[in-house]
Amino acid sequence: MLAYMNQQAFEATLSTGKATYYSRSRQTLWVKGETSGNVQLVKEIRIDCDDDAILLKVEQLGRAACHTGHRSCFHKKVENGSILIMGEPLFDPKEVYNK
Amino acid sequence: MLAYMNQQAFEATLSTGKATYYSRSRQTLWVKGETSGNVQLVKEIRIDCDDDAILLKVEQLGRAACHTGHRSCFHKKVENGSILIMGEPLFDPKEVYNK
Repeated sequence: MLAYMNQQAFEATLSTGKATYYSRSRQTLWVKGETSGNVQLVKEIRIDCDDDAILLKVEQLGRAACHTGHRSCFHKKVENGSILIMGEPLFDPKEVYNK
Repeated sequence: MLAYMNQQAFEATLSTGKATYYSRSRQTLWVKGETSGNVQLVKEIRIDCDDDAILLKVEQLGRAACHTGHRSCFHKKVENGSILIMGEPLFDPKEVYNK
């Protein structure tokens, strides 16, 4: 998955060990998994060469990172001008998010 | 590595099979590797759940993707409040970029 962090989100990620992002639309921090339970336990933090991107290596609790129920957000493959959905959702988003 | 694409960069990537990005600072397309020779041959293209991020799986020509000479741009590891450089540069940027 790809998400945005501000400084506060990065500091929360460091101090809690749980991947924490910043929602620019909602203008608030969000601990990944706070609703779904699919928390990401941070195993390693990498920074890129020009210090403007962060790569987290995580243990993904629950079965999937994506809000669609897919393990990865990158589950759409471009092939011959079409988009193929790779794999099946591992949970039903309606059950997870509309509790 | 992480880089920006606009629609034109995406279309060039599709049509040429070489990863092509858009430099927002220089306001121009750039074919990755056009200076260094370290072209990225695109093997697979993934799109994320909300259609605003692209993951390229590539064959990295030359020895490294990063302009520093490291294989990955994400070669800085955050550990105990310090930043560790992981691995050694695989080429000398001075030799590659100052020809």
